[in-house]
Amino acid sequence: MGKKYKPAISPTREEDYSKWYQEVIKASDLAEHSSVRGCMVIKPWGYSIWENIMDILNKMFKSTGVKNAYFPLFIPLSFMEKEAEHVEGFAKECAVVTHHKLEKGKNNNLVPAGPLTEPLIIRPTSETIIGESFSKWIKSYRDLPVLINQWANVVRWEMRTRIFLRTSEFLWQEGHTAHETKEEAKERARMMLDIYKKFAEEYLAIPVSSGVKSISEKFPGAVDTLCIEAMMQDKKALQAGTSHFLGQNFAKSSNIRFTTKKEVEELAWTTSWGVSTRLIGGLIMTHGDDNGIILPPKIAPAHVVLLPIIRKSIDAEKIMSYTNKLAGKLREKLYNNNPVIVEIDKRDIGGTKGWDWIKKGIPLRVEIGQRDMDQNSVFVGRRDMLPNEKKSVNRDEFIAKISQILDEIQNSIFSKANDFKNENTISINKTNMFYDFFTPKNHEKPEIHGGFVLSHWCGSENCEKKIKKDLSVTIRCIPFENKYEKGNCICCNAESTQRVIFAKSY
Amino acid sequence: MGKKYKPAISPTREEDYSKWYQEVIKASDLAEHSSVRGCMVIKPWGYSIWENIMDILNKMFKSTGVKNAYFPLFIPLSFMEKEAEHVEGFAKECAVVTHHKLEKGKNNNLVPAGPLTEPLIIRPTSETIIGESFSKWIKSYRDLPVLINQWANVVRWEMRTRIFLRTSEFLWQEGHTAHETKEEAKERARMMLDIYKKFAEEYLAIPVSSGVKSISEKFPGAVDTLCIEAMMQDKKALQAGTSHFLGQNFAKSSNIRFTTKKEVEELAWTTSWGVSTRLIGGLIMTHGDDNGIILPPKIAPAHVVLLPIIRKSIDAEKIMSYTNKLAGKLREKLYNNNPVIVEIDKRDIGGTKGWDWIKKGIPLRVEIGQRDMDQNSVFVGRRDMLPNEKKSVNRDEFIAKISQILDEIQNSIFSKANDFKNENTISINKTNMFYDFFTPKNHEKPEIHGGFVLSHWCGSENCEKKIKKDLSVTIRCIPFENKYEKGNCICCNAESTQRVIFAKSY
Repeated sequence: MGKKYKPAISPTREEDYSKWYQEVIKASDLAEHSSVRGCMVIKPWGYSIWENIMDILNKMFKSTGVKNAYFPLFIPLSFMEKEAEHVEGFAKECAVVTHHKLEKGKNNNLVPAGPLTEPLIIRPTSETIIGESFSKWIKSYRDLPVLINQWANVVRWEMRTRIFLRTSEFLWQEGHTAHETKEEAKERARMMLDIYKKFAEEYLAIPVSSGVKSISEKFPGAVDTLCIEAMMQDKKALQAGTSHFLGQNFAKSSNIRFTTKKEVEELAWTTSWGVSTRLIGGLIMTHGDDNGIILPPKIAPAHVVLLPIIRKSIDAEKIMSYTNKLAGKLREKLYNNNPVIVEIDKRDIGGTKGWDWIKKGIPLRVEIGQRDMDQNSVFVGRRDMLPNEKKSVNRDEFIAKISQILDEIQNSIFSKANDFKNENTISINKTNMFYDFFTPKNHEKPEIHGGFVLSHWCGSENCEKKIKKDLSVTIRCIPFENKYEKGNCICCNAESTQRVIFAKSY
Repeated sequence: MGKKYKPAISPTREEDYSKWYQEVIKASDLAEHSSVRGCMVIKPWGYSIWENIMDILNKMFKSTGVKNAYFPLFIPLSFMEKEAEHVEGFAKECAVVTHHKLEKGKNNNLVPAGPLTEPLIIRPTSETIIGESFSKWIKSYRDLPVLINQWANVVRWEMRTRIFLRTSEFLWQEGHTAHETKEEAKERARMMLDIYKKFAEEYLAIPVSSGVKSISEKFPGAVDTLCIEAMMQDKKALQAGTSHFLGQNFAKSSNIRFTTKKEVEELAWTTSWGVSTRLIGGLIMTHGDDNGIILPPKIAPAHVVLLPIIRKSIDAEKIMSYTNKLAGKLREKLYNNNPVIVEIDKRDIGGTKGWDWIKKGIPLRVEIGQRDMDQNSVFVGRRDMLPNEKKSVNRDEFIAKISQILDEIQNSIFSKANDFKNENTISINKTNMFYDFFTPKNHEKPEIHGGFVLSHWCGSENCEKKIKKDLSVTIRCIPFENKYEKGNCICCNAESTQRVIFAKSY
């Protein structure tokens, strides 16, 4: 069955993983570089994925009592400076607004005019500006908890950018909460991280490891940063979401105080947590193959594309009517509590239109030709299988089983990614083996980066630094599921009681 | 029935309309000024309204083939300069990014560093940056039409700001389309304006006049600007949405060219159209009264609030159980194809909690006390009626009729606004009457501004300018429904064939 084919994406992952990533984004029509340094244009197919991410996360957040709001894009420099560690962390990548109009200059060209008395920073994150509001909203324990989220664009001036993974402007959500007690705030930070893990695994089909960041990797100003880490196909880690327990650091700098039940004034305990358009980069690199991206049905902008094969020899009207009827029947079906989303590609461009949809990662392709009509069948290709593994299925059976098929695809995509992650996660106890594992061999592609290594770490920042300097490998997280285990630090051999996850990362 | 009451908002509309507007926003908890000059914080109750606006408009847009995408926040200065009229129109209110990091200055304080070689403008609107993408996407007539929308924040540096009406940063949607022919582009501009009109009237319950802007009032760079204009309760006009036919102006400056069916290269024809968070200001000023805002049910974040009256004398558990059961029954009901949204206010703060919800504009308040439980009834207040016009209704009847009651409220809110608009729209033929109409009398409040006046206009910009200078009155639009009618210009007495709408405006 089916002919041989050449991979649609060149170079392949094996040939040049970074270049493959760029090409696959182009071929799937997700996004493109803009003419503005480091900024991307998210095209409709890519933006639909983001809309689905927003919809699902909004439901998950709201079910825990979180409400959406919106805060200013601009942060006065003096606000940023209030939290020393925070401003230190972001100073090197801030877009700064210094003027509020344009005027004709000497050569009659336009130049910035109307200098601001205080420069404004474009938010790289909003702890300081939201903290200002919290300090006004919160007076008494009765006002707590405050559970807020915003969907917004943020700017971090990156020198080396990559679409979805690292861009100067990106879209994200940032949750900010304030609580009466330390325990409640810590619980909230963990609750939101668990939501991210559930979302990544059940919707994006991306298996993740979750845990706590080491001090050197935490968010500037946080007490603890919790994170989920995914493994890309080049075996590098991608930080896919973070949730911060901020202690009273930002409450102190923003003066968020409340009167307790005992009529004592205290500082509130705050958290913040976010995921961004980076998740789309994670989707591409976790599931994509040499024919394009592969979208898990639960996050795909459309589930099925119908491809009527219009040839001169056959009755175009008849085939369109068969196609439209099939679309109608499929749209009556539910998948994951929502109607099945069907696209119809009517273009009269021959066989290449199937490939366009393979590249775009749609879960199911249904070809409809004369023979299919005659036999009351459809010719179905699944994106989680090879492009030529198509098979003829009875039309009514296909309609009846659509939701089940989509579930199968969702599960098979997750299983594949999960197997890959498990196969490439190993425990190493010996320093030389550790170094060997993360050193590219001559015969290997330089883009393949080992995997996740569970090794003992004594907890010292010096060991972390040495490993980073020697191998460009960092501690991705101290896993939650850590068990007490005696061992020796992979770097300095000092005693250690737990393993951490080491990996190269994006 | 009911006691006398003092209006919840002070000052009242009559006493001081501008101040009333500020107070009503505060009392309804919609939004607040931020510490950043001219920027607002949209609080959860206000943001929920914006979420509903987004949801409904997204469905309306998508049903016409429009797809959402996202383009950069930053526009290089050179892009803005490509369309002369356009940059001229926005130069005086541009936030300009000139640096990309912060460094320690002389006094050890942080100062902007890393100067950019080309300043970046924060988008005041995105024709030029989206035009750049369109020029890449469009090669042939087969690529047309391109129908794109984005939901985004934009910045226009306003010197005098007012929450929702005029802020330096605001949220909006901006649609951008490109077409093969002039006719198709003009049709699209009109189609989107008609959607805005339908949305304003059927969802926001705001009656609007629609038409074309005069040349001096059109969007910088447009050929024609179509608009909807609403009448606020101080009888000033609020421009509530615009749709621009851009001709080939932006296609020329952004180089959007395509090959026609006849293999000739031509410039595309483009449109753009937008509505913003200003609509929330329109909602407040169209419907609000001296007790707070009034939300039409189709746009309200919640439809009904249940107010269990918890007193020591009665069984709190029993009343909560009655309340929860009622909430469950109401949530099973549909209003406008979606489940009825029910809030429960359990706070034990006595009678004032009803007033909190009046101020917030929720369509229905349902008080539940001992007597109501005994009689299987509920005590219902409608926000379109006076606060003390509450009545006892049989519980089951209330549940059965909930959707009908909400419809009645939606309609009564619209009718009231429509009557007000009609009563305050008059035709004037004599210049002295026109001047008299728009000149505040000693005995009148200065905030009441006449209304909409249909008068003849010869079409000259001079007459427009004179009226604006003398009376601060502008031409709001040349109405679509204009009939040919002979008359004389209200300003210069020259011959005219049509009436236009004059008004003071926000």
